[in-house]
Amino acid sequence: MQFTAAQIALIINARVEGDPAAVVASFGKIEEARSGQLTFLANPKYEDYLYSTKASVIIVHDTQDLKEPVNATLLRVVDPYSAFATLLAKYQEMIAQQMTGIQEPSYISKTARLGKNIFVGAFAYIGDNVEIGDNAKIYPNVYIGNNARIGDQSELHPGVRVYHDCLIGKNVSIHAGTVIGSDGFGFAPQADGTFKKVPQIGNVIVEDNVEIGANSTIDRATMGSTLIRSGAKLDNLIQVAHNVEVGHHTVIAAQAGVSGSTKIGNNVMIGGQAGIVGHLHIADNVKINAQSGVSKSIKNPHTAVTGSPAFDYTSALRSQAVTRKLPELEKRVIELENLVKQLLMEKAGI
Amino acid sequence: MQFTAAQIALIINARVEGDPAAVVASFGKIEEARSGQLTFLANPKYEDYLYSTKASVIIVHDTQDLKEPVNATLLRVVDPYSAFATLLAKYQEMIAQQMTGIQEPSYISKTARLGKNIFVGAFAYIGDNVEIGDNAKIYPNVYIGNNARIGDQSELHPGVRVYHDCLIGKNVSIHAGTVIGSDGFGFAPQADGTFKKVPQIGNVIVEDNVEIGANSTIDRATMGSTLIRSGAKLDNLIQVAHNVEVGHHTVIAAQAGVSGSTKIGNNVMIGGQAGIVGHLHIADNVKINAQSGVSKSIKNPHTAVTGSPAFDYTSALRSQAVTRKLPELEKRVIELENLVKQLLMEKAGI
Amino acid sequence: MQFTAAQIALIINARVEGDPAAVVASFGKIEEARSGQLTFLANPKYEDYLYSTKASVIIVHDTQDLKEPVNATLLRVVDPYSAFATLLAKYQEMIAQQMTGIQEPSYISKTARLGKNIFVGAFAYIGDNVEIGDNAKIYPNVYIGNNARIGDQSELHPGVRVYHDCLIGKNVSIHAGTVIGSDGFGFAPQADGTFKKVPQIGNVIVEDNVEIGANSTIDRATMGSTLIRSGAKLDNLIQVAHNVEVGHHTVIAAQAGVSGSTKIGNNVMIGGQAGIVGHLHIADNVKINAQSGVSKSIKNPHTAVTGSPAFDYTSALRSQAVTRKLPELEKRVIELENLVKQLLMEKAGI
Repeated sequence: MQFTAAQIALIINARVEGDPAAVVASFGKIEEARSGQLTFLANPKYEDYLYSTKASVIIVHDTQDLKEPVNATLLRVVDPYSAFATLLAKYQEMIAQQMTGIQEPSYISKTARLGKNIFVGAFAYIGDNVEIGDNAKIYPNVYIGNNARIGDQSELHPGVRVYHDCLIGKNVSIHAGTVIGSDGFGFAPQADGTFKKVPQIGNVIVEDNVEIGANSTIDRATMGSTLIRSGAKLDNLIQVAHNVEVGHHTVIAAQAGVSGSTKIGNNVMIGGQAGIVGHLHIADNVKINAQSGVSKSIKNPHTAVTGSPAFDYTSALRSQAVTRKLPELEKRVIELENLVKQLLMEKAGI
Repeated sequence: MQFTAAQIALIINARVEGDPAAVVASFGKIEEARSGQLTFLANPKYEDYLYSTKASVIIVHDTQDLKEPVNATLLRVVDPYSAFATLLAKYQEMIAQQMTGIQEPSYISKTARLGKNIFVGAFAYIGDNVEIGDNAKIYPNVYIGNNARIGDQSELHPGVRVYHDCLIGKNVSIHAGTVIGSDGFGFAPQADGTFKKVPQIGNVIVEDNVEIGANSTIDRATMGSTLIRSGAKLDNLIQVAHNVEVGHHTVIAAQAGVSGSTKIGNNVMIGGQAGIVGHLHIADNVKINAQSGVSKSIKNPHTAVTGSPAFDYTSALRSQAVTRKLPELEKRVIELENLVKQLLMEKAGI
Repeated sequence: MQFTAAQIALIINARVEGDPAAVVASFGKIEEARSGQLTFLANPKYEDYLYSTKASVIIVHDTQDLKEPVNATLLRVVDPYSAFATLLAKYQEMIAQQMTGIQEPSYISKTARLGKNIFVGAFAYIGDNVEIGDNAKIYPNVYIGNNARIGDQSELHPGVRVYHDCLIGKNVSIHAGTVIGSDGFGFAPQADGTFKKVPQIGNVIVEDNVEIGANSTIDRATMGSTLIRSGAKLDNLIQVAHNVEVGHHTVIAAQAGVSGSTKIGNNVMIGGQAGIVGHLHIADNVKINAQSGVSKSIKNPHTAVTGSPAFDYTSALRSQAVTRKLPELEKRVIELENLVKQLLMEKAGI
């Protein structure tokens, strides 16, 4: 899609300075934008780029002074960043609106109920009794098992797998390759050293306004539900085990893992590659640093922890500082031992 | 599927107390079951829920006394937990049996040999000379490369990828998105700083009764086979590198990784996010704690290790305990230094 | 495919000793090869296997003496290892050449431009304005979003997802399930504790000669491009966040993760399960040990680091050594305290 400076000026209510016919087809940062791109200048410390950028159109403050001639067409507005963000959002909306209709071949069970204005990509699979909400987007190669439900405005990116009976809320976005509802990892050890599978007959419930990244895995509950509460944001390659509960607006960074039956509160922040063992409770507003290994429940809200095993952030940093000079500390102990030995020997008159 | 209390009573040989026409369609835990669900009471400490649960049918011990009236229909049996487990297993069997036949469109090479009573989902790909055993279930969007073999009763969940020449045994269950047989990570460094790919022409052999979770990756051997021995259980997002051998009934938790050519014994337990470097031997019955980093072979069976780098569990816990009070230990050393300095100065008559 | 010893002898210019009609269909290591396999003997320490191997054809040095009779057909050459490697490469080429043409059903937009001699597997999806280079191989179930470009000779294994606008260079190999161009993890915290998504409108650029393993995830940039420079090699289950740059010939082992906007130099080596926080610079030729957690930029080329948080490799190893004997060090401090207390008391005449 291409737009002229004049067209964009209409959308963001800007005053055009330069060629109104200048054409842009994409967005860029002012320091790296190419010809044919739209950019903006909001932070005065980037002003030098105004004169060197190759962008074709630049959104600037309406009071912006020019110290040198500018090649690009300028669009003058009251708040350049906000105008730019408005354009980004509108652009994404337009792209998304283009994806509607049902591509062929796709597999849609006769018992599935489809909402209005949905998109179903080629090679998508929609099982028996599945319910798809209005304006939902089911990209190519997605699998939705029997009896699953996908809420309005939700989008499942290519290759997402939603197992049978799982429920996905409204305005949920799940990125490519993520698996919702695979069996929990439950095996009963037998006397002969083998393992017997414990049937996993629960489901996963993902509430409204959740975003989940690519290639993550959220296991179904043994019984009941694994729960991702509304507003939670999960990154890529995350493991959420059976019967876990992730609280509202909790944020989990890439490659972190949560073991079975652990309950995580609201507005918790979990760093990348962190791990939490099973059957714990994590209070609201807790911060868990990247690569931490949480082995005990955290009962006090607003606690910050780090390390593996994780403990209080401030103490842990202090211990880490001493750890780095441990060889020197050992030397000091050896020296003390020698001095004390000497004192003892002298006292004994040796 | 819906069942009446009377129908269930026949299956588990129960005595009905209450309405035999009460209908249930799913299972629940007694503390959270809803109307229309079946539950059980085995542990006396949950008895209070017997009177408050909303479940429609409850399996109880045949000698269970009632202190208050119960709304649900009761099914009295000798062993409630075992009766409930029987129903779960039967239920899963029934669900699975419904999946048979070949959905269209799917891609099945003319040279593939298909067993009896199999299920092939839409958009599944079955390459040349592939062999699929009896009662196998190949879910939608699965890819099976040329010459691969899938044993009887095995199930490949949606989006599983089995590369060419890989062999999957009987009763194997592989969850969505898992990749079997991608190239091992082998590159020969060249004098100019670039890398030359080492062809990976081996395969992966997954023996009988193995279960592998979702989005895990098991690389093919450079030559020979990467081996997952019978009875092993692997969780989600696990990395198994080329030429690794995982022993019988070994259990690996989510996000753990095993580097190339390492041989892991039987009945080993590996915790989540643990890593094992390449070319090691891990003895039988070893326990590797979550997030451990194993950098040396473990020769003694039944050893337990933790930490990164990992060492003996008990010693590691002791070291961790001291690590937490390192700042205090440093203070004590400083104090000692001051005292000893004072003693030395006094002795010198200063 | 089957070959006789005589046919192979022609390819590698070998002298046949034994049955020239002996047939092989695959390759094996000399210590584990089966009947019908081809192997080689290059290292004299494996000579004993020459007499016990079940391989049907063995490539040996032209001057190899035989101490016992050999069952297999021998192919005598000047350099057995190099001859074997030649065969491996030729074999892979032949296999790959067999994959051409467009399997049905597949979804190819009318506006896509397809190169010569390409392979498109069944259920592959090729969106609007996509460009596929000559000899490229798009395996079954692959998704390529609108405006993406795939270079000559590149191969996308089954289930790879390339989001819209992403650019993949020439001779690139991406293994099954890997996701290129999912949204970066960007959310602006709001005053009410919720998060607002930051649109991710950049792309991913993967340059020439890159290999990426299975089920890895490379997020698109917020604006601009996430960059994987030519010659880089990435293993399985790796996370590369938005706006990251991975340098030329940099090697990243499985399950490692790189957070947003970090720039990694050329010829860097990153061990398995290592993590690097966001907005850092890592100099050329740096080595980051497995499971390290890098929290600060590394400015000096050729630095090696380990630990979490990571610091200089040699110092870290020394600290780790002392860490293991910390309980003993604590005992020594206690003993010193007792001795000094005693000295002080004696001095005071107590």
